[in-house]
Amino acid sequence: MNWKDKLYEVIFEADTPAGRTFDIMLLIAIVLSTIIIMLESVPSIAAANRDTFVVVEWVFTILFTSEYVLRIIAARRKAKYLLSFLGIIDLLSILPTYLAIFLSGAQIFLVIRVVRLFRVFRILKLAHLLGAGNTLRAALIASRHKISVFLFSVVLIVILSGALMYVIEGSEHGFTSIPRSVYWAVVTLTTVGYGDIAPQTFLGQFIASVIMILGYGILAVPTGIVSSEMINLKSKEKISSQVCPHCMRDGHDSDAVFCKYCSFKLNDHTVS
Amino acid sequence: MNWKDKLYEVIFEADTPAGRTFDIMLLIAIVLSTIIIMLESVPSIAAANRDTFVVVEWVFTILFTSEYVLRIIAARRKAKYLLSFLGIIDLLSILPTYLAIFLSGAQIFLVIRVVRLFRVFRILKLAHLLGAGNTLRAALIASRHKISVFLFSVVLIVILSGALMYVIEGSEHGFTSIPRSVYWAVVTLTTVGYGDIAPQTFLGQFIASVIMILGYGILAVPTGIVSSEMINLKSKEKISSQVCPHCMRDGHDSDAVFCKYCSFKLNDHTVS
Amino acid sequence: MNWKDKLYEVIFEADTPAGRTFDIMLLIAIVLSTIIIMLESVPSIAAANRDTFVVVEWVFTILFTSEYVLRIIAARRKAKYLLSFLGIIDLLSILPTYLAIFLSGAQIFLVIRVVRLFRVFRILKLAHLLGAGNTLRAALIASRHKISVFLFSVVLIVILSGALMYVIEGSEHGFTSIPRSVYWAVVTLTTVGYGDIAPQTFLGQFIASVIMILGYGILAVPTGIVSSEMINLKSKEKISSQVCPHCMRDGHDSDAVFCKYCSFKLNDHTVS
Amino acid sequence: MNWKDKLYEVIFEADTPAGRTFDIMLLIAIVLSTIIIMLESVPSIAAANRDTFVVVEWVFTILFTSEYVLRIIAARRKAKYLLSFLGIIDLLSILPTYLAIFLSGAQIFLVIRVVRLFRVFRILKLAHLLGAGNTLRAALIASRHKISVFLFSVVLIVILSGALMYVIEGSEHGFTSIPRSVYWAVVTLTTVGYGDIAPQTFLGQFIASVIMILGYGILAVPTGIVSSEMINLKSKEKISSQVCPHCMRDGHDSDAVFCKYCSFKLNDHTVS
Repeated sequence: MNWKDKLYEVIFEADTPAGRTFDIMLLIAIVLSTIIIMLESVPSIAAANRDTFVVVEWVFTILFTSEYVLRIIAARRKAKYLLSFLGIIDLLSILPTYLAIFLSGAQIFLVIRVVRLFRVFRILKLAHLLGAGNTLRAALIASRHKISVFLFSVVLIVILSGALMYVIEGSEHGFTSIPRSVYWAVVTLTTVGYGDIAPQTFLGQFIASVIMILGYGILAVPTGIVSSEMINLKSKEKISSQVCPHCMRDGHDSDAVFCKYCSFKLNDHTVS
Repeated sequence: MNWKDKLYEVIFEADTPAGRTFDIMLLIAIVLSTIIIMLESVPSIAAANRDTFVVVEWVFTILFTSEYVLRIIAARRKAKYLLSFLGIIDLLSILPTYLAIFLSGAQIFLVIRVVRLFRVFRILKLAHLLGAGNTLRAALIASRHKISVFLFSVVLIVILSGALMYVIEGSEHGFTSIPRSVYWAVVTLTTVGYGDIAPQTFLGQFIASVIMILGYGILAVPTGIVSSEMINLKSKEKISSQVCPHCMRDGHDSDAVFCKYCSFKLNDHTVS
Repeated sequence: MNWKDKLYEVIFEADTPAGRTFDIMLLIAIVLSTIIIMLESVPSIAAANRDTFVVVEWVFTILFTSEYVLRIIAARRKAKYLLSFLGIIDLLSILPTYLAIFLSGAQIFLVIRVVRLFRVFRILKLAHLLGAGNTLRAALIASRHKISVFLFSVVLIVILSGALMYVIEGSEHGFTSIPRSVYWAVVTLTTVGYGDIAPQTFLGQFIASVIMILGYGILAVPTGIVSSEMINLKSKEKISSQVCPHCMRDGHDSDAVFCKYCSFKLNDHTVS
Repeated sequence: MNWKDKLYEVIFEADTPAGRTFDIMLLIAIVLSTIIIMLESVPSIAAANRDTFVVVEWVFTILFTSEYVLRIIAARRKAKYLLSFLGIIDLLSILPTYLAIFLSGAQIFLVIRVVRLFRVFRILKLAHLLGAGNTLRAALIASRHKISVFLFSVVLIVILSGALMYVIEGSEHGFTSIPRSVYWAVVTLTTVGYGDIAPQTFLGQFIASVIMILGYGILAVPTGIVSSEMINLKSKEKISSQVCPHCMRDGHDSDAVFCKYCSFKLNDHTVS
């Protein structure tokens, strides 16, 4: 095993002690640098520690730049890594500091570093966690058509109610334009309700009430979609697709060895 | 095929290249005209481009009017089209511009054009999308009685809590009338919570807290309704589509061997 | 059939044309009188029509009083009617007007008349509506223990977070006492969020964020409870409890005549 | 039975009349002392009754201290009780009053006494209530991995949208720092929506709208998780409790005739 394979193992894998240590150190560095960026944005803290922040920021940037270069060296398919989601995030995580030399204020975009925390899933290697993530993703993918229809309907409802309220309430009550009224409709339908814009005429309040109760019912749709998909995925895991070779009936549990109806031995199922 | 059939195909169908192109052009026109109407309502944008907006509006109106006339000519059952939901929307989408000649400000109602976007479902011809829409609609229809009972209860709760808070808080804390207090109750029960009206006495805050936690539980009802209906619809798919060869009735479970109504043996179903 | 039986039929039943007409007239009167009470509370409307409102109110009160007297006369078990839920509501619906002679302002309580609308269920006689109501009630009753545990936990969480925020934020940021902070915790946990009280220190905002995300998860519990109960009730309706007399297996649909596994005739089920 | 056993029975058990009476008295004392602490924090009430509160507080503290000492004496495994959750809460419930002698204001922490109310479950001895609590806990435990993935994603989304809005809106619109913007993102995503910070630029309102609708969909995830787990737990009840007489394994469906592991015939179950 040459040094490049060794490097690959340390940087891209998390099975060996060295790889695991590297990944945990990296995670800690990411968390720390994210906290630093957040603190730097607080005026009172930033004013007192301007120099410290500049130093710390450069330390992290040089650290992450070295790591990025090492990743490119170690990667077997360099182009694939460079264009992968995590590869692009790795680049975007160091770029802002360099940009800030020419363009003051660009370092705010360093916050994208937080996306690198997604690596945590690979490090923890928790089969359960990954399984849970997959179930969530599968439920979302399985219901993508229903979610599209739902989102499309929400957009239509929001534009129509926004325009209606713009006509009813008018500029003097904060509904200064249709886009702003549509924003109000989104704030209301999602039950966020800031209160920065609120209907003040009787008719406006009546229609707003109808939109709210409607929004109540609409809220049930995505929940129903995701719930039914998750229940569906759960029940699929438990029932084997195999058929009894003797009585030809299915619905056996995946751990069944004999047919529960006629006691005939079920076929081995190598692929579960 | 005469010109009228050809016209029908282009305007009302989306299977042929010509029909598809027509529909996509139409969709783009609808989206553009909706954006124009929304921008026109923004004072700063409208002030600078008053003339442009008037021209663009008339261009779209003439375009949609021609399309409306062509639809009437091409339609086989003219009365049916004129009185259909989409036919009325088509008319309402052009009327406001003409009305605005006599009645300034009427063009705001052009926003109803956004409803025409519903045609997108027909154009995309995505079986999955349509299926998803049907599932959502079926779930809503199947639970319409439960939703009625739910809405009726919400109306009662909202009127009673509104009246109660009107008595407790009174005009000096913003609860100036029962209708306004009912509006507050809707805003609270749906968890929108603008904060434009909020209880200020101890008793008022206590009762508001009870209403909120109650609203929390009530929120669960429509979600439960839709979820259970969607799961129900999903499980219906598990029912075999085969028909008994003897009594011709369907609705057999996929694991049934004999007809549950007449005991006739069902056909083997190799593909489940 | 004597006049008392006739009266009973008209007032208490809704099967005969006379009974149905009576009930519909009554419903309209209740809706009208509720609207009148709500309008009367609007200062601008009340000021202009003080006399009209007094007259209308007395008309409705005399009408409902006559109806109440007739109900007592017609009722077969007078005590049972007087003490029934609807009987007490009937009394409370007329009392405030009489009380208002001695005690100005008491007529506001006339709004309790809206509860009488519950009679609508009896009038409509929609089996589906009643069934839907029963399903909802059954789902709530079946999950009353889980709901108790849930409510008890919510009360504990709300008191503890209220006290915590009172200590952290203090009087100067609106958290003037523990009861008021508990009210804030309810407003936050239920995602109502008026904004009349909001954390302003860094620590307060951090803990509020944790409470909100916690509330997010807690919101899932009552929904999960109601959903699972409703799905449970739904699936119970479809599966018959009968067992095949020949192969002793159950799980037959309630409309099955023959066993779906062995074709043996199932027993008649007089009680479904 | 010596006095120590007797004491154990009264204090730690709730089956005997004496134990039950003790526990109910204790619960009442806890509820009363919690109410007193809450009232004491209300400035207007506290000012008028300062002395009364000091006396009442000491009475409850001496009462609870005696109880704590008695519990230590009666406990069979003293270390285990002292370090148990309820044991620590018992200590924390009396400590603040003593601390307040040296450290004014410490008595606010007496509110932790409310946690002692958890004993209510032991007292009521309601099998159903406990069962319901267990179901809730089991549902939460079963879905802890999914909930972790969900919470992790929420934290990432909230930090990224907070940073984005900080860049777009800036200090002049209330987004004074990234931590404060993240707080805004939590308030928005959970649909609490105080309105103390709200976007004011067009772009900010547009992105906020997207975050809200996104939050809408995200709200569905924990609900779907808990719902599916609760339905899963419910369906587990449908699995027969019988054990195969041959291989001694359980988990057979209630309609199974033969053991699915070893094909041995299962016993008849007359009571399903």
